[in-house]
Amino acid sequence: MVLKKGMPLIDFFFEPNGIAVVGATPEPYQGGHHIVTNLTLGYHGSIYPVNPKYQKVLGLKCYPRVSDIEGPLDLALIFVPAKTVPQILEDCISKGVRGAILESGGFAEVGPEGKALQDRCLEMARKGHLRIWGPNCMGLVDTTKQYVFSFIAPDAWQGVMNPGHVSLIVQSGLLSGGFVTTLMGNKTVGLAKVCSIGNKSDVDETELLEYFLQDPATKVLAFYLESFVRGRRFFELASSSDKPIVVLKGGKSLLGAEASASHTASLAGHHELINGVLRQAGIHQADDFFEMVDIARTLEKGFYLQPPADRKPRIAILSYSGASGIVTADHMEKDGLTLARLSPHIQKRLEELSPAWMPVKNPVDYWPAMEKYGPVLTYKHAIEALHDDPEVDGIIVHLFAGFGIWFLNMKEIMGDIQKPRKPILFWLIGPEKGREPTRLTLEEEGWPTFSEIHRTVKVMASLFEQPKRKKRCSQMLPSDFPVSLDFKELVRTTGGPKKRILDEHDSKKWLEALGLKVVREAVVHHLDETIKTANQIGYPVVLKGRVEGQIHKTEAGLVKVNLQNADQVTSAYQEMAHLPMKPKSFLIQPMLKGNLELITGITRDSQFGPAAMLGLGGVWAEIYKDVVFRLVPLNQEEILEMVSDLKGKALLKGYRGSKPVNMESLADWLIKLGWLVMTFEKIQEIDINPLLIVEGEPVALDANIILQ
Amino acid sequence: MVLKKGMPLIDFFFEPNGIAVVGATPEPYQGGHHIVTNLTLGYHGSIYPVNPKYQKVLGLKCYPRVSDIEGPLDLALIFVPAKTVPQILEDCISKGVRGAILESGGFAEVGPEGKALQDRCLEMARKGHLRIWGPNCMGLVDTTKQYVFSFIAPDAWQGVMNPGHVSLIVQSGLLSGGFVTTLMGNKTVGLAKVCSIGNKSDVDETELLEYFLQDPATKVLAFYLESFVRGRRFFELASSSDKPIVVLKGGKSLLGAEASASHTASLAGHHELINGVLRQAGIHQADDFFEMVDIARTLEKGFYLQPPADRKPRIAILSYSGASGIVTADHMEKDGLTLARLSPHIQKRLEELSPAWMPVKNPVDYWPAMEKYGPVLTYKHAIEALHDDPEVDGIIVHLFAGFGIWFLNMKEIMGDIQKPRKPILFWLIGPEKGREPTRLTLEEEGWPTFSEIHRTVKVMASLFEQPKRKKRCSQMLPSDFPVSLDFKELVRTTGGPKKRILDEHDSKKWLEALGLKVVREAVVHHLDETIKTANQIGYPVVLKGRVEGQIHKTEAGLVKVNLQNADQVTSAYQEMAHLPMKPKSFLIQPMLKGNLELITGITRDSQFGPAAMLGLGGVWAEIYKDVVFRLVPLNQEEILEMVSDLKGKALLKGYRGSKPVNMESLADWLIKLGWLVMTFEKIQEIDINPLLIVEGEPVALDANIILQ
Repeated sequence: MVLKKGMPLIDFFFEPNGIAVVGATPEPYQGGHHIVTNLTLGYHGSIYPVNPKYQKVLGLKCYPRVSDIEGPLDLALIFVPAKTVPQILEDCISKGVRGAILESGGFAEVGPEGKALQDRCLEMARKGHLRIWGPNCMGLVDTTKQYVFSFIAPDAWQGVMNPGHVSLIVQSGLLSGGFVTTLMGNKTVGLAKVCSIGNKSDVDETELLEYFLQDPATKVLAFYLESFVRGRRFFELASSSDKPIVVLKGGKSLLGAEASASHTASLAGHHELINGVLRQAGIHQADDFFEMVDIARTLEKGFYLQPPADRKPRIAILSYSGASGIVTADHMEKDGLTLARLSPHIQKRLEELSPAWMPVKNPVDYWPAMEKYGPVLTYKHAIEALHDDPEVDGIIVHLFAGFGIWFLNMKEIMGDIQKPRKPILFWLIGPEKGREPTRLTLEEEGWPTFSEIHRTVKVMASLFEQPKRKKRCSQMLPSDFPVSLDFKELVRTTGGPKKRILDEHDSKKWLEALGLKVVREAVVHHLDETIKTANQIGYPVVLKGRVEGQIHKTEAGLVKVNLQNADQVTSAYQEMAHLPMKPKSFLIQPMLKGNLELITGITRDSQFGPAAMLGLGGVWAEIYKDVVFRLVPLNQEEILEMVSDLKGKALLKGYRGSKPVNMESLADWLIKLGWLVMTFEKIQEIDINPLLIVEGEPVALDANIILQ
Repeated sequence: MVLKKGMPLIDFFFEPNGIAVVGATPEPYQGGHHIVTNLTLGYHGSIYPVNPKYQKVLGLKCYPRVSDIEGPLDLALIFVPAKTVPQILEDCISKGVRGAILESGGFAEVGPEGKALQDRCLEMARKGHLRIWGPNCMGLVDTTKQYVFSFIAPDAWQGVMNPGHVSLIVQSGLLSGGFVTTLMGNKTVGLAKVCSIGNKSDVDETELLEYFLQDPATKVLAFYLESFVRGRRFFELASSSDKPIVVLKGGKSLLGAEASASHTASLAGHHELINGVLRQAGIHQADDFFEMVDIARTLEKGFYLQPPADRKPRIAILSYSGASGIVTADHMEKDGLTLARLSPHIQKRLEELSPAWMPVKNPVDYWPAMEKYGPVLTYKHAIEALHDDPEVDGIIVHLFAGFGIWFLNMKEIMGDIQKPRKPILFWLIGPEKGREPTRLTLEEEGWPTFSEIHRTVKVMASLFEQPKRKKRCSQMLPSDFPVSLDFKELVRTTGGPKKRILDEHDSKKWLEALGLKVVREAVVHHLDETIKTANQIGYPVVLKGRVEGQIHKTEAGLVKVNLQNADQVTSAYQEMAHLPMKPKSFLIQPMLKGNLELITGITRDSQFGPAAMLGLGGVWAEIYKDVVFRLVPLNQEEILEMVSDLKGKALLKGYRGSKPVNMESLADWLIKLGWLVMTFEKIQEIDINPLLIVEGEPVALDANIILQ
C-alpha cells in the first residue's frame, strides 16, 4: 500500500491535546473572541487563551505568552497582526507546540514584504519542528467531532454542523467561511472536515490528500486550489486513490491567473498541463464552487461508476414536459452523454400506464399517465421500470413539487429502489413550500437534487467521466528500454555542458537510436555535394540550413521545401548561404508527403515533473489549440485516452479515406520519449514538430532536444 | 414604423369581452374546474361555463353548448378530449367567437393521427374566422390585470401575481406552468404576461412578438422555442426592436432535436443557421430555463448597454475573497469580458479604506477594509468609487449576507448610486435567514442577484453582447447590383428547367460575370490540347474531369492537383479518361498557392429564407466545424461580425506573416452572392469551396450553383 510509507504525521492538527488561542480577546465580534467561543462549543480538551492584555477570556484563564502555559499543548491557533507572528512562533517552539494554524493575513498574499515575513516564519518553524497551517486561512472544521478551529462567528455553525462524508480543502481564507456556512445552512451536502489552507506555506494539499485518503470519516474529497505544491506526489496519490476526488482549479485562464497573482501568492501553473494531469489521475473537475460541491455530494451518495467501454453513457429522462426533456438532451450532447434506447420489455411496462395515443419513448413524457393515475403511482412505476432497464446507465427525473397532488411523497416513490443503484438525479422545481420538503426528503434518502438542468446533466456526466481507479503502471519496463552502449555514448558525446540545444540532426540521431522513425537526411557542405545528394534522394527535396541554437528555422529563412530540381536546389542553397547567420552546413531530405501533421514532445513542469504533449500540428492547431498533456511514463491505454481527448481525433482515425494512424507506433513514440526524459535528467525539453503521418506511420521531420 | 402595417389583431385573446370555458366542471382538482376558479379570481367580464352535464359550475350558469350562450363572447378556453374539439370549434364559429385557446393535448405532439386532427381544426377555424391558440398549451397569464386563462391549479397563483415587465412566450404546455409558478414564488422576476403556445398551430411566436413590441406593459421579451414559424418575419421584427429579446432554443443539438421530434410537432431547424440569425438580430441567447430568466430580468432593470467598440467590456470585481475573484475572472475570460484597469484617482479612493500592506487592484479584495470599517461603509465606499470609474463598464460584487454584522443594510449601501447606472450584479451567498432578505431588498431596489459565479458572469456578458438596435439595411442597393444584359442572358441560357446543378465551369462564369474573382481556366477535350494549354498556363497545373451532376469530384477521382510537367498531365488525363464515368471534357487551371482556404455559399432555409455561410475551409474546418451563418442581404458591418464570430478569425487577420484577407473583397463576395440569390428565385444553393486567399484576395477555385 503506497500510503504506509511516509504517512503524514499531522494528526495533532485534527486531534490536538490542548489548544492555545493566541490573540484571544473578551471583546465580542472579534475573531480572537470567536475562536475561543467556537472551541468551548465543541472541543473537550484544554483551551488556553493567550493575550498579555487580559486575565480571563470567556471565563478561562488567559496567559500572557504561550510559554507560560503549564499543561500539554499540541496546537496554537494564531490570530494576531502579521508582524507579531515570529515572536509568537518562537514562543510556541520553546513550549514544544507541534502545530500552529496561522489564521492572520498580511503574508505572501500582500506582496514581497509579506512573503519575506512568511519565509522567515517558515524557516523558524522548520528549525523548531513546528508545523505551520496557513497563513491567511480560516482554519479547520470537523463536523463529526464538532470542532471549529476558526475565527468565523459562532452563529454560523449553530444547528448546521451535520456530519457527512465530503471533506473540503480550500486554498482560500474568507470565501471558505462564507461558502461553508452557506452549504451547511442549505443542508445540501454533508461535510466531514473543512480545511482552509490559505497560503499553504508548509501544510499543503498534497499532505492533506494523504491524510484524508486514510481518514475513515472522509469518503469524497473536494479541493479548491490555485496552485499545486508537490504536484507529482498529489498525482500519484490521486491516481491510486479509491476515494473520488473533485478539483476546482482557480486561475485556469490568463485573466484568472492575472487575478490570482497577488492571491495566496501562488502561481496558476500551466492550465493545459494541469487539465491533462487531473484527467490522467481520474480526478473530477469543476468550474464553479457550487458545481464542485454538487459533484462531490453526488459522488458521496455512492454513484461512482465504471464508465461504459467504447460508448457514451446512456441516460433516460423521465419528465412531465417535452420542453425540459429537449433542453436536457441538448445539455447531454454537450457533456458527452446519450439518450438510452429503452428495452422493449421496459417500454411495454411504461406503456401500461400511458394512454395509447401517447407513444412512450426516451425522453419519457409521462404527463398523460400522471393525469390519469396521479403523480405518486406513475413516478414510482416509471422510475422503477427505468431502473430495471439494462439499456439505461443513469436516470434524470424532472419533478415539480408544489401544492395539492404535487406535494409528493418521495419516500413512497423511491422506497423500493434497492442497491446496487444506478444514478437517479432529480431536477426539482416548484414553489418553495412544496419544493423544500421534497428536496430534503430526497437528499436524506440518498437521491441528489438540482435546481438547474445544466447542472443536473453536468453532474451526471461527471459520474461517468473519471471513475477509473487503477494502479498506474507503464507497460514498458526500464529493462525494455533499449539503452544500448551506442546510445549512452551518443548521449555522453552530444550532451556536453556547452551544448544546450541539440540541433535537428543531432536530435534526430538520438530518436533514431531509440528505434523511432525520422526522415532520411544527409549533411552536406557544398553546392556540388548538395546537388549530387539531391539527385540521389530524388525530387522533390527539402533543404535546411544548420545554424547553432536556431530553433525557429522557418521564420529565419533556413527551410526551403518542395524543391523540384537541381536549379531550385541551387537557388535555395545560394539564398541561405547569403543569410547573415551563414549556415555551417546543410541538411537535405526527401520531401515526404503525409496525410496529417502532429506535434509531440516532452516538457518538465516544476510541480508535476516530466509530461508528454500530443497535438494536431500546423497553423490550424495553433489557432484551435488542440493539444493534450499527460505525465510520463505512459502506458498504451493512457495514450489512447490522450488521443481521444483531442478535438480533432477523427483525423487520426483515417479521415476522408486516408489511412488511420498506427496507434502502436504513436504509442511507441510517447512511451520512448517518456522513458528518455525519465532516464536522462539533463534533458529539459523535447519538441517533435512536425511528426508527419506517412501511410499511417509517424515520421519526425524536425526535432529539437534541449538539455540543461 | 415597421409595426404599423400588419399590426396583429389578437387583442381579444388578452382583453376578451366574455369568456366561455368549454369542459368546465364542478369537480375539484380537475383542470376544467381550475380554469373557472382562476377566471373568477381576476377576470371581470362575463364567464360562461360550458358542459352539457351540469347546470351550474361554481355558482355560474353552465351552458350545454357554446352556441347557447346569449351574451357577447370573444374567447373560448377549451379543455376537453381532443377528439371532441372539432365539434366545439364548429359551435364557437357559429356563435361568432373570435379566439379559442385550446389547452387540451392529443394533437400533433402525439403523432400523425393527432396532426391530422389538428390540421382539420385549423382548417375549420380559418374558414370560420376563428383564431386558435395552442393546442397542447397552458394558456396565458397577465399579472397586470390578474388574469389567469389556464387549467393550472389556483393555489399556484395565490400571493405571487406581482406585476413586472418581462413577458414570457413558451412553446410548451406543462413546463410553463411549473416553471412560471416557481419563478413567481421565488419573486426573482417580475413577469408581465406569460403565453404558453404549445403546438402553435395558428397563433405563433412571431405574431406574439409583434403584439408585445407594442404592449406598454412589456419591456423585455423571453422566448422558449423549439422551432421558428415565419422565421424571416420574426427576424425582421426582432432586428428593429427597441425591446430586448432573449431566446432559449430547444433542440439545438442532434440529441435535442431527436428528443423534440415528437414534441409539439416541431422541427428543430438548422442550429448553426439559427444561431447566426439570432446574433444578427441582436437577440440574447440562453442555454437553460433559469438562465433565460436571469438574463431577461437583468435586462428589465434597465442595464441595456451599447457594447464598447473594438474592445472587451471591462469589469471590476469587488470581493471579500481572492478565491472568488479568481474564479470570476476565469469565467469572464470564457465569456469575453476583461478585467478593468482602475483609474489612478479611483484606486486612491479605494486605498483610503484599505491598509497600506494590502495593495488595491482589480479584483478588489476589500476584506481588510471591511474588517476595519465594517462591511456597510466599505461596500458603499467601494461600489460608489467603482461606479464613478470611467475605466469600468460593469461591476460584479461578491456579497456574503448572514449573521451579525453581515446582516447588511443594502438600501444604505446602494442608496446613493444614481441613474444612468452601470450594471452592478451581485453574487450572493450566505445562510438563508441572512441571504433572503438581502436578496429581496436588492431585487426591489433594482439590483440583480445570482447564486452562482458562472451565471453572474454569463448575464454580465450578455448585457454587452447584443445591445445593437439598428435598422437593418444593406449598404448595397439593388440598383448597385451589376445585372448586365449579358448576365441576364447567362442566367437565361444556363438556367433551363433541365439543368439543376451548374457545374464548376458554368457556376464560375456566373460569379465572374458579377465581378468576383475566380481561377483562370480552360475547357479542353483532348490530350494534345490539354498539354498545349498546360504549357501555356505554366506548371504546376490542376486538371479536373467534367462529369454532369458530379459535385464530389475529389472523391470520384476527378481532380488531379500539382501536376509538374507534361508527363504528369498525361498520366492524370489518362487516368481520368478511363474512369467509368468518362468525363466529356476537362478543365485545366494553374495551381494557385494561397495562404488560407475559406468556404462560402448561400443556402435557403424554409423558415428564414436565404442565408450566407462563411467558414474556414479544408479538412480541419470540417473537424472543428468553424462556420458562421447570417441572413442576406448583408452589409459590411454584418460581414465583419461574421468574421469575428469565426473561431479561427486570427487566420484571416494575417497569421504568421501572411497577408491579411482583404475584407472589402470578402464582403463583396458575400454581398453579391446575397443579392444574386435574392434576385434570382430559382437559385437554391451556392457553394464556393475552396475560396482560396491568394495574397489577401479571395479567389474561387471551385463553385457549384444549384437551381430549382
